Amino acid sequence: MHVEHFQLAKELKVEKIDLLLLQLANHAIKEFGHRYGSFLDAASTAAKFAIYISFLENGRNFRKTGVAHHVEPKRVREIVKEIEHAIRENTSLKGLSSKEPDYLIGIPHLWKEKYPWKPGTSRISGRSLDSLEEKQLTLHIPKHFPKVLLIDEGELNSLIEEMRLLSADNNSSKNSNTCSEALLEHIRYRLRHSETIVQVTLPFMELPLYALASNSYAPKGQCERLENMVDDTTRFIFLLKQWVQEEAYAFRALETLTLSPSIREQAFQELDEMLRQWGDKYHCDGGEPIILQMALGKCDEDIL
Amino acid sequence: MHVEHFQLAKELKVEKIDLLLLQLANHAIKEFGHRYGSFLDAASTAAKFAIYISFLENGRNFRKTGVAHHVEPKRVREIVKEIEHAIRENTSLKGLSSKEPDYLIGIPHLWKEKYPWKPGTSRISGRSLDSLEEKQLTLHIPKHFPKVLLIDEGELNSLIEEMRLLSADNNSSKNSNTCSEALLEHIRYRLRHSETIVQVTLPFMELPLYALASNSYAPKGQCERLENMVDDTTRFIFLLKQWVQEEAYAFRALETLTLSPSIREQAFQELDEMLRQWGDKYHCDGGEPIILQMALGKCDEDIL
Repeated sequence: MHVEHFQLAKELKVEKIDLLLLQLANHAIKEFGHRYGSFLDAASTAAKFAIYISFLENGRNFRKTGVAHHVEPKRVREIVKEIEHAIRENTSLKGLSSKEPDYLIGIPHLWKEKYPWKPGTSRISGRSLDSLEEKQLTLHIPKHFPKVLLIDEGELNSLIEEMRLLSADNNSSKNSNTCSEALLEHIRYRLRHSETIVQVTLPFMELPLYALASNSYAPKGQCERLENMVDDTTRFIFLLKQWVQEEAYAFRALETLTLSPSIREQAFQELDEMLRQWGDKYHCDGGEPIILQMALGKCDEDIL
Repeated sequence: MHVEHFQLAKELKVEKIDLLLLQLANHAIKEFGHRYGSFLDAASTAAKFAIYISFLENGRNFRKTGVAHHVEPKRVREIVKEIEHAIRENTSLKGLSSKEPDYLIGIPHLWKEKYPWKPGTSRISGRSLDSLEEKQLTLHIPKHFPKVLLIDEGELNSLIEEMRLLSADNNSSKNSNTCSEALLEHIRYRLRHSETIVQVTLPFMELPLYALASNSYAPKGQCERLENMVDDTTRFIFLLKQWVQEEAYAFRALETLTLSPSIREQAFQELDEMLRQWGDKYHCDGGEPIILQMALGKCDEDIL
C-alpha cells in the first residue's frame, strides 16, 4: 500500500517549509532506510550548524547568539565546542550520510572478503554437503548470486557487528561498539527489504541460512533517481539562493500550462532540444560556469 | 560578517541529504527567525510523520514498522496516537509555520488595536506631554511610522504574552502560557532585528520606550524572495518525485555551460522568451495542468 504523503500532510495543515522537512524525512527514513533516530541526529546537527554560523556572524558572542535564537548561552558554548572540535579533528558531524546506510553498503564487500566460495567446494560455511544436498541447494540459489558462502544468522550478525565497528571507526564516533538485538534485526530487515540478502530454507538444515543476493546494497525502488533527486534539490536550493541574493548570474522561471496527452511527447522533445540549442548558442570558452536545473510535472493545485 | 555556510559544510565533509538539511536549518533559524528549539520540534514532527506513513503502508503493524526504522513498537504506538489525534481534532502538528514567527507577525496588529494614536493627543501611553516634549519626541519618530502609541518594555512584554496566548490558542497546544524572560528577550530581539520595532530614548524619560516602526513583521533582508525560495523548492521536490516515479508528465533537465558576462543579459532574455513561447505553443484548454520550474546560476564545482 502506498500512501500519498502530500495529501495527508495537507489534511494536517502542513505548509511551506514544514512540507519540505516532511519530504526530507520521508526520503531519508522510508526510502533510503536511515534509522528514525539517525534522522533526528542529523536534524539536530543541522540546527547546531546554523547556530554556529550565527555565532561567527555575531562576532563570536555567546550571549548575543543565544538571544537571537532563544538558546541558553551555555548551550551555545557547547555547540561551538562540538563543531570546532569536528573541524579541528577533521571528523564529520553526526549526519545521515556519515552513518547509514554506510554499514549497509559495506556488508556485501565484507561478506565476499570473509566467506568467498570456490565452485566445486561446499557452499555452506563450516559444513560439507553430499551430492543430494548439493542439488537441493542449487535449486535455491540463482546463478546470478555473488559467489560467496551461505551463512547462518549468527555469522550474519557478526558481519553486521564488524561492519558497524569499521564504519564507526572511520567516523571516530564513540559509544558505537554496542549493537542491540533490535538494531541487528533492523539491519537484517533493511538488507532483506532491499533484496541485498535473502533467507534460504533448506530441507536438510534445521535453521534458515542467509545468501548474498546482490553485489551491492541499494535501497529498493528507483534508487538511482532518488539519489539524483537529492543532488538536484541541493543544487536547486543553491541556485535559488543566488537568486534571493539577486546575484548577476541568477535566473528563475516558472511556467504553467495545460498540456494535451497527445502532444506531450512532442512538447517535451522540443523543450529538451530548445534548451540544448540555447546552451550551445551561448556557451563560450573562458566564460562563467553556469548550471541550469529544471523540473516539470503535473500540477496539483492544492499543493503547488 | 557573512559566513559562507556551504564552504564550512564542505570542510566538515557534509554531503548530499545532510547539506539539504543544513540549508533548511539555516533558512529557518537564521533567516526566518524561528527558534532553535522550534526547528528541532519541526524536524521531530517530520520524522514522526514518516514513521506514521510507513505504519499505514505496513498494514498498521506496530512491530513491523518498528523493525523497519529501528524504533521501539511502544514508541511507534505513541507516534501513531499523536498524529491520529491531530487528524481527528483537526489541529496542526508542532511545525515551523504553525508556531513562529506567527506571533511575531501578530504583534503590529495587536499593537494597533490596543494602542491606537490620534494626532493631536499624547503619543506616549499613559502620559501627557508638554509642547517641548512633544517636539523632542517628533524628532525621534519618523513620519512613516504607524500611528500608534509608544509603549514601555512592560507594555511590550504584555503584548508579546497576549499574542503568544492567542497564537497558542489557535494551535490548541498545551503548556504555552509560560513566557520566560529569555523568550521575551529573544522575541524583542527578533522584532528589533527585523526593524518591526525600534527602541527610542527620550531626554525626558528615564527608561527607553518602544515605537512600532512597520505595519508588518518580515524577516530582514530579501524576505519575499526567501519565501518564494521555500515554495519553489517544495514544488521542485514534488515535481522531481514524479520523475523518480517515472510518471508520464515528468520531465527533468540539467544543462551546464560557460557564459560570457557580455552576453549574459541577452541569453537570459532569450531563455525567458523561449520558455514563454514554448508554453503558448503547447498550451491547450482541457489538457493536463503542468508546471515548469527552473533555476539557473553560477556553478560551484566543489559543491554542485
